[in-house]
Amino acid sequence: MNQQRINRITENMKKAGLTQILVSSTASLYYLTGFWIEPHERMIALYLDVSGRAILFGNEIFGLKSMPELPLICHQDSDNPVKSLAEAVKPGKLGIDKFWCSKFLIELMELRNDIVPVQGSAPVDLARKMKDDTEITLMRNNSRINDQVVGSVIAMLKEGVTENYLASQVNQHFIQRGADCEGTQIVCFGANCSDPHHCGDGTALKAGDSIILDIFTPINRYWCDMTRTVFYKTVSDKQRQVYDLVKLANETAISRIKPGVLLSEIDKAARDIITLGGYGEYFTHRLGHGIGLECHEPPDVSLASDIPLEVGMIFSVEPGIYLPGEFGVRIEDLVMVTEGGCEVLNQYPKELQVID
Amino acid sequence: MNQQRINRITENMKKAGLTQILVSSTASLYYLTGFWIEPHERMIALYLDVSGRAILFGNEIFGLKSMPELPLICHQDSDNPVKSLAEAVKPGKLGIDKFWCSKFLIELMELRNDIVPVQGSAPVDLARKMKDDTEITLMRNNSRINDQVVGSVIAMLKEGVTENYLASQVNQHFIQRGADCEGTQIVCFGANCSDPHHCGDGTALKAGDSIILDIFTPINRYWCDMTRTVFYKTVSDKQRQVYDLVKLANETAISRIKPGVLLSEIDKAARDIITLGGYGEYFTHRLGHGIGLECHEPPDVSLASDIPLEVGMIFSVEPGIYLPGEFGVRIEDLVMVTEGGCEVLNQYPKELQVID
Repeated sequence: MNQQRINRITENMKKAGLTQILVSSTASLYYLTGFWIEPHERMIALYLDVSGRAILFGNEIFGLKSMPELPLICHQDSDNPVKSLAEAVKPGKLGIDKFWCSKFLIELMELRNDIVPVQGSAPVDLARKMKDDTEITLMRNNSRINDQVVGSVIAMLKEGVTENYLASQVNQHFIQRGADCEGTQIVCFGANCSDPHHCGDGTALKAGDSIILDIFTPINRYWCDMTRTVFYKTVSDKQRQVYDLVKLANETAISRIKPGVLLSEIDKAARDIITLGGYGEYFTHRLGHGIGLECHEPPDVSLASDIPLEVGMIFSVEPGIYLPGEFGVRIEDLVMVTEGGCEVLNQYPKELQVID
Repeated sequence: MNQQRINRITENMKKAGLTQILVSSTASLYYLTGFWIEPHERMIALYLDVSGRAILFGNEIFGLKSMPELPLICHQDSDNPVKSLAEAVKPGKLGIDKFWCSKFLIELMELRNDIVPVQGSAPVDLARKMKDDTEITLMRNNSRINDQVVGSVIAMLKEGVTENYLASQVNQHFIQRGADCEGTQIVCFGANCSDPHHCGDGTALKAGDSIILDIFTPINRYWCDMTRTVFYKTVSDKQRQVYDLVKLANETAISRIKPGVLLSEIDKAARDIITLGGYGEYFTHRLGHGIGLECHEPPDVSLASDIPLEVGMIFSVEPGIYLPGEFGVRIEDLVMVTEGGCEVLNQYPKELQVID
């Protein structure tokens, strides 16, 4: 158990008027206990009260170990997985992890009609938003690896290579550098780049294509995530204009980052540039997302996000312009808020590249 | 919307005394609507009443389309995602999808204190357990592809090759044959084979190793899943004895499959063989699992599963023996229950192979 993190969470519980919560999300449990459990259909829940007392309930198949400060109560597949937990919770309000499966909550309510389930993830999410030194070291290192992988994959661009071949090469490079697993990488050519969520298919590279490489993976549990857009053989005036605009939007947003500024203002800084350039309607998504143990986690980086920046927040800045049937450009960096502004975690250059 | 499937589900709802349910799991929604949506933190729910009337509620980012028989109500990220749904449900019992995130259920209960949430997945799970012709055709074809992939990967075995290299080759072969995505494949050598869930690492192949290839992937949304164990260069008497026992357990269990027999009896048939052979304590998991749109789905194939076999059920038969620090053997086939017994979907041979 990480006592510093527990303390931050119990402080947040007090502010939110919560005396007891259940934590079940894989990433949040890992954050507190060091156990990485993907329970799928099985039950796991950490009970935490505002005094910092914790009990872990889980299926014995998870291979959990009790710790002096964390008693463990296991059940088997043939047991009612919620029974012991229902005996431990106190009457009244109980904060529930946002991702806990409804089947367990319904069972708990049937066993204990004196509890009032309420939203219970905020105390943990608030703590996870500000990275501590251990996390910062890992995420800096992982973005360095991402810089290397994007360089290696750009070096493999050649006539006729397919999106999904390159996507698998991204995975290979990540695995060779210690990634936890392979995943779905976003590699798009030409008109496919105009769909921000296009999945790599058999499309082959040809002269004049824009190439979006949006690559991300967990390494030692923490995610890196960056996007670079390059061009193959030639670049048209329109492509160059759009690229310059997206790069300026990325750089302008980054230049505005410092403690106290609202996340919505950072989104607006990028959006204003693209709108002034005449492409506002083609920047169709939010500017970015928090990242850490999950690729997408709080804070949200959008016009709707009235949250002030705080030292230690790490999030993506990824403006894009998507022209249906033509091409697309996105440039994404991870940034960390510092006392004086921010540290950009990605160092791979952003100058326009035409690959020959 | 698949009307035949809707009819089966509303029949199941009547039997269970449910007049309304919410369906939200990715696979179950796809089964009914053809939309494959992975909502992550966002909200999706299909409201279905016992008359067969359905309404789909989801975030506009999912790109859903309404159909004549399926009205669509979309929300945006900035909306309360449960508001419209709360206006549509009727008072009283409401069956809730087992995997719906608790945050939505809590919000729904706060907006509507006249509903009583109850477990609501069984009507859909029961329908999905028996595969229809479309599904059977896909799953037969996918197991044929799995046979080819396991053969291709066995042909790549050589001194010093690593587990995770082979695992990535499994993915490459699957992708070349149309798999939907890459995934974590189970490839283990030697003593690593004694952990049924060992993830491939940098372990290199050496003479005398057992090799477990447990490979699985979705192709056109439906999963294949098979395991073969082979030996490298030499096989000891003990390895041969254990292999023969596991093969006999696999074949005996398969020979007992026919409509009306309980799933627990199939598990027991395999377990009895291994126990009689003296290795009962080393067969540490259930015999198998249902499979279809999910790799693990109902029915459970274990001693606790008192469910009679019905025509059209597809599940795995995967006995194993795991000797800590030494080696392990698992042999897995997918089988489909037929009128007269069963059809084994995997055709790759099970005779003991020593690779040279």
